[in-house]
Amino acid sequence: MKLVLLSGGSGKRLWPLSNETRSKQFLKVLEREDGAMESMVQRVWRQLGASGLAGDAYIATGSNQAEMIRSQLGDVPMVLEPHRRDTFPAIALAAVYLYAIEGVSLQETIAVLPVDPFVEDRFFDRVADLDRVLHASGAPLALMGVKPLHPSEKYGYIVPKPAAASADLSSSDAWQLVGRFTEKPSEEEAKRLIAEGALWNCGVFAFRLGMLIDMLIEKQLPINYEELVRSYERMPKISFDYEVVEQADTVAVSEYDGYWKDLGTWNTLTEEIKTGVIGNGTKCGESTGSHIVNELGLPIVLLGLPNVIVSASPDGILVADKQKSPKVKEMVGSRDDEPMFEERLWGSYRVLDCNVSGESSLMKVGLIQMHAGKQLPYHAHRLRSETWTIASGEGALLLDGILRKMRAGDVVHIPAAAKHGMLALTDLTLVEVQIGADLSAEDVREMAWDGKDRASIGGGE
Amino acid sequence: MKLVLLSGGSGKRLWPLSNETRSKQFLKVLEREDGAMESMVQRVWRQLGASGLAGDAYIATGSNQAEMIRSQLGDVPMVLEPHRRDTFPAIALAAVYLYAIEGVSLQETIAVLPVDPFVEDRFFDRVADLDRVLHASGAPLALMGVKPLHPSEKYGYIVPKPAAASADLSSSDAWQLVGRFTEKPSEEEAKRLIAEGALWNCGVFAFRLGMLIDMLIEKQLPINYEELVRSYERMPKISFDYEVVEQADTVAVSEYDGYWKDLGTWNTLTEEIKTGVIGNGTKCGESTGSHIVNELGLPIVLLGLPNVIVSASPDGILVADKQKSPKVKEMVGSRDDEPMFEERLWGSYRVLDCNVSGESSLMKVGLIQMHAGKQLPYHAHRLRSETWTIASGEGALLLDGILRKMRAGDVVHIPAAAKHGMLALTDLTLVEVQIGADLSAEDVREMAWDGKDRASIGGGE
Repeated sequence: MKLVLLSGGSGKRLWPLSNETRSKQFLKVLEREDGAMESMVQRVWRQLGASGLAGDAYIATGSNQAEMIRSQLGDVPMVLEPHRRDTFPAIALAAVYLYAIEGVSLQETIAVLPVDPFVEDRFFDRVADLDRVLHASGAPLALMGVKPLHPSEKYGYIVPKPAAASADLSSSDAWQLVGRFTEKPSEEEAKRLIAEGALWNCGVFAFRLGMLIDMLIEKQLPINYEELVRSYERMPKISFDYEVVEQADTVAVSEYDGYWKDLGTWNTLTEEIKTGVIGNGTKCGESTGSHIVNELGLPIVLLGLPNVIVSASPDGILVADKQKSPKVKEMVGSRDDEPMFEERLWGSYRVLDCNVSGESSLMKVGLIQMHAGKQLPYHAHRLRSETWTIASGEGALLLDGILRKMRAGDVVHIPAAAKHGMLALTDLTLVEVQIGADLSAEDVREMAWDGKDRASIGGGE
Repeated sequence: MKLVLLSGGSGKRLWPLSNETRSKQFLKVLEREDGAMESMVQRVWRQLGASGLAGDAYIATGSNQAEMIRSQLGDVPMVLEPHRRDTFPAIALAAVYLYAIEGVSLQETIAVLPVDPFVEDRFFDRVADLDRVLHASGAPLALMGVKPLHPSEKYGYIVPKPAAASADLSSSDAWQLVGRFTEKPSEEEAKRLIAEGALWNCGVFAFRLGMLIDMLIEKQLPINYEELVRSYERMPKISFDYEVVEQADTVAVSEYDGYWKDLGTWNTLTEEIKTGVIGNGTKCGESTGSHIVNELGLPIVLLGLPNVIVSASPDGILVADKQKSPKVKEMVGSRDDEPMFEERLWGSYRVLDCNVSGESSLMKVGLIQMHAGKQLPYHAHRLRSETWTIASGEGALLLDGILRKMRAGDVVHIPAAAKHGMLALTDLTLVEVQIGADLSAEDVREMAWDGKDRASIGGGE
């Protein structure tokens, strides 16, 4: 059995902590038993390890999340979408990768699940059990449903067929055949559905690899990986639920009777954040039930306001009534600001100040923190100059082909068009001041770091 | 008649906008009729001008506020306390300055008032009228009282003598003799006081200059200005109310029947801030009665919270229920952080980031904005180096005696112990990165900027 974990989403509902490169699943806001903080993907990966499933798991994601995933999980297997589409293309790409590149048998069961469910460890035992459900039911698709805790209006419901001919519901190996699906019912309707035995759809599907490959052949889509990557942009932007699950004649569903939660909004997320204050902050005077999550250096003082979320990051500051916090998505949905904080494989970049003065002249001050042994790509900017001041640590600077060791207090001016890269010899902090006329992506040229490639590329200029 | 305006206070109740160098009276949060923003001192100075009193007004303050006052009001006459004491020494110093330095007649009336009352223009006509009240009443001291609007528990009350023998209260020239003073009564007591005709004490006193000079002689305190400055540290730390007003046999009080407000806390201040959002911010979803005052570049989103104040500055972020906001003083009272934003005569300094790493090694990134024609003092740091990158504008850098013109994009490294200063040829923005082992005041040596003095000082090293 192979697992495919889908990692997507920009997480605007958790603004300002999440942004284009840092989706909600990467926020380190969950407390482990040992007191350390971890992100949702770190938690799930740890749980997969405990269930013995991590060795068979792949993460399907966009290339913009690849560095973040490596930074948080290490060198895990990933299938990278060349463009963002919907879940059907993403799952098809992962399936073709497993079939064509990894040589996985067409008889193998593939289980697809979100990368960030907040669940008990035994959730993953139930995922592993879907292999057996596929066998026992003979259905081409098996889903997992969560036993509802309350008649929620927010979720999709999986309604079993009335006559459960195929299984003994009192057994923990229970499975049923699916009668129909219902999205976001009213509370009254939800109560009726629950009485019928309906389950919450938690986005977990299992199928034989051959089933999906056959479907791709039938739809005349490529089953050669490189070909699918090349034509990926033309793949239909459609969900797996709509394209596959809802079209299937027979679908089995297996019940998970345990804790499950979507931590996608500040009100649900903060219910799972044990500590009331993360970062530099103070709550006082009747501020019970309130949370401060502060990634800025500045102190936050919260005074006399219960049940609010105050969240601050280099991208902005949110102050919201918890119940109303899901609306933040609408508020920031139209914002198209450049992220002010990015986590990368080599470390992180934080914008300290940014001013556009005059026509297109720009001044930007940033803090670069590098991990020991990592490198900033060797690159050049056509229109902007930079000044780097090393604040702490040691690094090897490559500037127009000349290598130079730098340590705390050293300063280098990088004129426009000069090629530059940095290898961190220890953990390294540097302050970068950019002055220039353009900061667009076209202004950046990346080159291979090592001397040989660089010379050949450099020679071509 | 001369006016002495007392400017003091660190304004911790308006944290994070106010700090050690920026007291509440300097915050530009009040909207003028033409839509421009002004501070409380700017408003009062404008009102004094309209009343024809500005030409006779002096500001008594500490030297830490002198630059801020010049920056906001221009070259106004100031009497600078060498140390912070209480109001009696401050008023005594101003009186001795007027007598000994300015040669003001001992018969002249001196009116003392706070630098930041939020009042109607005619308040100042009533201040001017205190000269007449002193004459008419024959009392050595005349106060101004505000006709109470409600039985407040927060203010001091001036209770007139029951038999108002001396004046016709129906006249606008009314004055009475004071019977007694009462501080912060209960609401019930305040109601009884108001029924007796009591007035709120708004901190305005008038007296003949000779009265105070005689008192200083009697108390064996210096009436020579330089001598008083030298011995200022030994002056009693006592208020003028306690030392003079409450000890006086006869005190007259004149009534001001108009708008008067103490804008010292967020709840009272925001009542006078017309616009709900100052700076980069958005209010949405039932946030009526709430205010955002944001001095940071980051956007603030306030969602679904009525009657709160969200205020952000480089010093920190406050989120408070308005009614409870006065408690912020207690919350930040114990904080002794270095101010993260300072307004100076030459411009402003803002800390963008500050990290103490390791034993005493420090990295600090700051943004310096200079006004055209102004200069940063010529100085040196024993233990820290600096890198300056000019972001916009032009300046003349003096570095170890060598003058050099700098413009946007230019970079200079200033090693520890190097003498440096900057003259802004245009408005100038520069980014400063400090690396060093010490940032204490002892690390800084200031020298005269001009060549001659510098050479002689420099030669002595």
